[in-house]
Amino acid sequence: MAYSKVDQGILASLRQIIPDPKRLLTDKQDLAGYSYDASFGTYWPEVVIQPKNTEEVAAVIKLANAQKIPVYPRGQSTSLSGGPLPVEGGIVLDLSKMNHKLEVHADDLIAIVSPGVLTAAIHEAAEKVGLMYPPDPSSSAVSTIGGNLAENSGGPLGLKYGVTKDYVLGLEVVTPEGEVIRTGGRTVKNVTGYDLTKLLVGSEGTLGVITEATLQLIPKPPAAATLLAIFDDIVKSGEAISKVLTSGILPAKMEIMDQACIIAVESYEPLGLPVDAEAIILIEVDGHPRAVEEEIREAAEICERIGARQVQIASTAAERANLWKARKMVSPAITRVKPTKISEDATVPRSQIPAMFSRLKQIREKYQVNLVVFGHAGDGNLHPNIVADKRDKEEMQRVEKAVEEIFQAAIELGGTLSGEHGIGNMKAPFMEMELGTAGLDMMKRIKDSWDPNNIMNPGKIFPKPGQKLNLTEE
Amino acid sequence: MAYSKVDQGILASLRQIIPDPKRLLTDKQDLAGYSYDASFGTYWPEVVIQPKNTEEVAAVIKLANAQKIPVYPRGQSTSLSGGPLPVEGGIVLDLSKMNHKLEVHADDLIAIVSPGVLTAAIHEAAEKVGLMYPPDPSSSAVSTIGGNLAENSGGPLGLKYGVTKDYVLGLEVVTPEGEVIRTGGRTVKNVTGYDLTKLLVGSEGTLGVITEATLQLIPKPPAAATLLAIFDDIVKSGEAISKVLTSGILPAKMEIMDQACIIAVESYEPLGLPVDAEAIILIEVDGHPRAVEEEIREAAEICERIGARQVQIASTAAERANLWKARKMVSPAITRVKPTKISEDATVPRSQIPAMFSRLKQIREKYQVNLVVFGHAGDGNLHPNIVADKRDKEEMQRVEKAVEEIFQAAIELGGTLSGEHGIGNMKAPFMEMELGTAGLDMMKRIKDSWDPNNIMNPGKIFPKPGQKLNLTEE
Repeated sequence: MAYSKVDQGILASLRQIIPDPKRLLTDKQDLAGYSYDASFGTYWPEVVIQPKNTEEVAAVIKLANAQKIPVYPRGQSTSLSGGPLPVEGGIVLDLSKMNHKLEVHADDLIAIVSPGVLTAAIHEAAEKVGLMYPPDPSSSAVSTIGGNLAENSGGPLGLKYGVTKDYVLGLEVVTPEGEVIRTGGRTVKNVTGYDLTKLLVGSEGTLGVITEATLQLIPKPPAAATLLAIFDDIVKSGEAISKVLTSGILPAKMEIMDQACIIAVESYEPLGLPVDAEAIILIEVDGHPRAVEEEIREAAEICERIGARQVQIASTAAERANLWKARKMVSPAITRVKPTKISEDATVPRSQIPAMFSRLKQIREKYQVNLVVFGHAGDGNLHPNIVADKRDKEEMQRVEKAVEEIFQAAIELGGTLSGEHGIGNMKAPFMEMELGTAGLDMMKRIKDSWDPNNIMNPGKIFPKPGQKLNLTEE
Repeated sequence: MAYSKVDQGILASLRQIIPDPKRLLTDKQDLAGYSYDASFGTYWPEVVIQPKNTEEVAAVIKLANAQKIPVYPRGQSTSLSGGPLPVEGGIVLDLSKMNHKLEVHADDLIAIVSPGVLTAAIHEAAEKVGLMYPPDPSSSAVSTIGGNLAENSGGPLGLKYGVTKDYVLGLEVVTPEGEVIRTGGRTVKNVTGYDLTKLLVGSEGTLGVITEATLQLIPKPPAAATLLAIFDDIVKSGEAISKVLTSGILPAKMEIMDQACIIAVESYEPLGLPVDAEAIILIEVDGHPRAVEEEIREAAEICERIGARQVQIASTAAERANLWKARKMVSPAITRVKPTKISEDATVPRSQIPAMFSRLKQIREKYQVNLVVFGHAGDGNLHPNIVADKRDKEEMQRVEKAVEEIFQAAIELGGTLSGEHGIGNMKAPFMEMELGTAGLDMMKRIKDSWDPNNIMNPGKIFPKPGQKLNLTEE
């Protein structure tokens, strides 16, 4: 597919839609900020547009479709899979300024939001009226709900409460041909035709632009408690996780960090963590106060029985925050080790967590890479992170091979390439490995039927013929 | 689209795939049982096939696609929207005999099932190991999981636990061209490409045949309690429902039955219900025993404060079953009033439940129809049922108009045509009213791209040009 360039004629047409020069950017220094995200690689857009409403989005898309110019929706660019990267040039649609609506309708247990609203603002607005918007990607303080919707973001609370998709009742969407449609509605139950809402959430901006969403809220659980358990043996920590999950307790969160994370955190900011321990797990339960009290005690007993070196319990908000401190510090700590961080989110069935840990250990040794593992152990959604230096080509070639083998391991263990970060451009070459030719073809048919000119976020999800993972060139 | 007839040549080819004559039915008396479901109308198939495995399904679909013969997947035919009706002739694929697999993997909190397994059997298998498969359509004792998946069935527990779709992790599917694909997997989190799993669940057999499903299970809550509250004023009962839901309690179930239901039940089997009351509501909470005890008391206090005439609480399984008796008897009781039952499931946002009740009252009076209302009040998923006699053409014309106005009312109040029964053939004429031309077109593009010959369950979901609701002809 050959795309058109954004020439002076097209720029003039765009300026008719967006006359405000502050919302239509073409200067190199303005474009620079749109050439990367939190993943890997630099790609330059030709123009950046900051639409303020659905009509502007629809007009831009209609023009882009008629002229065959690629369009990349973008929120706050916290994507770990390259979601908003303009890999084929064209128009970046910066939706972070389209944040005028954040309505909470407590009697219907819903919120209606614009795509540029920060996820944390939704958390806050819901809590003000005793409600809760559960999806909690680690980036929620800085990421937009539009980005969360496009990528179907997860988070620690996914274990008990599910992911972004589970809380979307309806959408307003601009299709790849510039039509405005509404999917779903304001009701929890809706089986009127195909579930376009759940098709669009997680479609990574390849099927249209989400311009409004109706989200489901739930009553906020009145109490919570957290435990931190230290294990000398990582396999034992996996057993403890399994045992808690089959004991009748469904924790809100269950996180793990391995020895490499512990060491990185301790050298970043000493918290007194034991650097000789193989794993730390954190378990949080929430709900009715009495239930919380009993369940956290029971979970602690299970950890002790299986051989935890030490177990701490916290019930107040301040004490709980203190226990979570180590886990929250993992990401900044590991990027201190080396500058380039390749974050993966390969996910395996719960029972395969110990097997995945030993596969990851083999990969670390085989390729001699700085591989650290943390993540959402309760649902098998691990985050193997490799830190490296992208200027070191030889190291990056080893990283490439290690990443490929991580994906293979996840799929061989009955898991998936991506639990919550999305496919983007980097994981596209591995899609057929997981889905098979026919499975990938059925996805492609939907894409082709909705976006015949392939203008919406091209280069994402679907591999080009012969495309391979490439971390050594930009 | 012109379909081929199942002639002797095609029958001979089908016999090569299914040589067992007991699994390939062509006798009129055998076909009769496949000419109706629990909705309305009689449509005859040309041949019925009972496949035993995925290979047989794929071979039949390949043949049907090559020969342009319609195929209708069918479970136990409890559909209330005409899901399995062979409205264009052709092949009914009776999957109720494909029930060989029901595996529970407790450590992964999943079950793997064949489409013909009864939903109640999954409930039972999960409970044996302390787990729970939450979706509980009222038909679960006799309906197959395949039918539940095709229609995305709900049920009373939908309020707290969601519907069938929320518990499907992966599928094996035969596409409309006879390819076997696998969607999703065994992990709770999976964002690898488009969510074909959630697209297929609820697609009413129009996008392929589900031949296996991986379902998510959860720990079974250890305790439950139920209350029954009687209201003189139905509007007050709606207020009580709203008040409970915004008090921080999320009940497992919240059901309502109106005065017409109470009268029907009492004349069917006297339970001592007050026939002068306008509404009975049932609330069930589940979870930790201490939480259950407090929450049911709080819900009872709310009902009393708002003006319930009487509130009863039950905590033991036997007492609870006794309270549920009246609600379970509604369906058989109302079909005693008149023989033809038109069951709808128009759903409105929670806050619009009182408004919907008054619209339904107006409709009952305007068209002088036997309209009774019960259903899942907590999530706005009501079941307005009209009982009539299909031999009375004049009455059926009034029913047609009343049904049309019920759909209009639901959509005007921000709701949807169908909360859990599906669209089928009867609601197809109203799709554009809810979705608009562009919205329906985006669904149709998916259908066309997956099933270019339109062989999979034609006549469902998508209206024919000019199609109208017709309850007076068969």
